Amino acid sequence: MSIRPWKVLESNHLRKNVRVDQCEFPNGKIVEAVVLEYGTWVTILALTKDQQVVLIKQYRHGVQKVIAELPGGVMDKDDAGPRGAAKRELLEETGYSSDTFIQVGKASPNPANQTNLIYSFLALAVEKVSGQTLDDTEEIEVFLKPLEEVIAMARNGELLQSMQVSTLFFALAYLGRIV
Amino acid sequence: MSIRPWKVLESNHLRKNVRVDQCEFPNGKIVEAVVLEYGTWVTILALTKDQQVVLIKQYRHGVQKVIAELPGGVMDKDDAGPRGAAKRELLEETGYSSDTFIQVGKASPNPANQTNLIYSFLALAVEKVSGQTLDDTEEIEVFLKPLEEVIAMARNGELLQSMQVSTLFFALAYLGRIV
Repeated sequence: MSIRPWKVLESNHLRKNVRVDQCEFPNGKIVEAVVLEYGTWVTILALTKDQQVVLIKQYRHGVQKVIAELPGGVMDKDDAGPRGAAKRELLEETGYSSDTFIQVGKASPNPANQTNLIYSFLALAVEKVSGQTLDDTEEIEVFLKPLEEVIAMARNGELLQSMQVSTLFFALAYLGRIV
Repeated sequence: MSIRPWKVLESNHLRKNVRVDQCEFPNGKIVEAVVLEYGTWVTILALTKDQQVVLIKQYRHGVQKVIAELPGGVMDKDDAGPRGAAKRELLEETGYSSDTFIQVGKASPNPANQTNLIYSFLALAVEKVSGQTLDDTEEIEVFLKPLEEVIAMARNGELLQSMQVSTLFFALAYLGRIV
């Protein structure tokens, strides 16, 4: 068996970035698919010299909770690619920076209904170089935790966001900590 | 600083499961948030006795590609919780089953715009017990790969779905392979 793509019969936007496709399945059945047309995302595991991870806390309206996260965001057209976006987002959200941003992995947030990819970076020897630069609809608290504790937070659901758990996986694999 | 939730001023559905909330940010700014009201999801890292992972290949319309994935899906109301859903989905999609399904982690696919959680299971000593039972809008190819190769696939973006990379993280942590 060879898996075949769906044929798009009709495409409509419910609003900016939210598309509904009427698709024909290979057997002729009609499938309606909601597709989110998001830009490229980045997320960063930022490690200080003493192996502390730079974390943030913010309100997330999907789950309606304040949660701990890794820094990250959406690539701008002015960014020098995903790496530039990662460097900018880390600096804006936390005031930390570094000269060393290593792309450790990439993934699809959800290949079924999103067009975009998320790039994962490991930033080494980060240091606090400035204050935060936040949009007027961002409220972000910065805190540090040892890497060991962040691994535990991922395992117990406290580092709740799936894309950030995968970033942790990529970073640990890069660091030779998956055996 | 203590991070405050947004106040919902108005909620409208664009269609079933796709909600738009008009929210008031703590400083009075108005934010419009698209929220996807999905059900509970599950995904399974299923290992045979000789450490082969049961993988599937299917067309994913968001990225418009046929990709390799771990089995998984949406919990039904008739399922005995996430574990029951994991067992049913693995059997339906691949024909493999086991008596041992261990919940190794949970995560939010996207806490910013989704209400649901995804539960990650490790199934041990799975065996092929039947054929597939697919919906008439599912076309799924089943194949096996050694666990080591699946780790490499995650690292190189071939196991593309972020939630499945996080499932791999949870399973490897459970198996004591993160040091």
